[in-house]
Amino acid sequence: MIEPSLDLYGEAAERVDAVLVDLLAQSRARYALVVDRQGFVLLHQRAPWAPKPPSLDSLATLVASNHSANVAIAKLFGEDGFRETVQQGDGVGTYVEALGDRALLLTVFDETAPLGKVKLFTKRAVARIREVLADVREAPPELTFGSAFSADAGALLDDLFDDGTRA
Amino acid sequence: MIEPSLDLYGEAAERVDAVLVDLLAQSRARYALVVDRQGFVLLHQRAPWAPKPPSLDSLATLVASNHSANVAIAKLFGEDGFRETVQQGDGVGTYVEALGDRALLLTVFDETAPLGKVKLFTKRAVARIREVLADVREAPPELTFGSAFSADAGALLDDLFDDGTRA
Repeated sequence: MIEPSLDLYGEAAERVDAVLVDLLAQSRARYALVVDRQGFVLLHQRAPWAPKPPSLDSLATLVASNHSANVAIAKLFGEDGFRETVQQGDGVGTYVEALGDRALLLTVFDETAPLGKVKLFTKRAVARIREVLADVREAPPELTFGSAFSADAGALLDDLFDDGTRA
Repeated sequence: MIEPSLDLYGEAAERVDAVLVDLLAQSRARYALVVDRQGFVLLHQRAPWAPKPPSLDSLATLVASNHSANVAIAKLFGEDGFRETVQQGDGVGTYVEALGDRALLLTVFDETAPLGKVKLFTKRAVARIREVLADVREAPPELTFGSAFSADAGALLDDLFDDGTRA
């Protein structure tokens, strides 16, 4: 089974989600997605003014497969890949930027969001998400046993022993 | 066997070739290609300052397949397709614009060509090529029997009869 190549969970996921929310607020884009290069949606946000999005899984799959073809095109010219890809239709456009080796940031916008703003704030979001990913890599989540855990564990143990005496 | 869906030959091909040469001269891009949506290179020009290009057949195949995936993405958002696609790498970029239903115009540029110029002159080239294609459609090439043909045919017939009498 194929699994996402990047796990974003806990605090890191919350921080990236906040970046996506900011990106949408600043750029006036519709949706922002962190997509695995294998085609998984890792995180996504929808702007309050955006209509119901299409299937994000289909979108992520197509964007990721497109990205692979783009890498092949870039390699023809001796490049590792294209940094950014913009597609503009009459109503809707997409902007994709690489997010390290394993993920992509996809911003979907419409004619109310100027492309310049979308590019600027997507680039800023990429920089902020890279920081989060670097932090995650430097400090993998540990099981920490703080005072809250101790209290919880104590209560749980009490329960267990209570149960034991009542059984 | 798959065959190109658009035949560009004779005067039409010469006119489109001239458009591509102008496009490269004005935008300072490297290569300009008219690519069939099935992945055939219909016409291509290389700027005098451009290095030897990679396999244009591979490039056209990848660009056309990418375009199909892009159409699928656009359709998710209720659009027929994206009008334009820009990809930028560190050294090389590509700009693709639809050329009617059956072909694409691909401009490959490097950092010496500003994207704004590439977009502007590619759009102008698209408009000019569309005119050529419209002319071709309106006036499909006919077999015209002008005076030159008559003279040639006459000579040929003379030869035939000569051969006949000598046989």
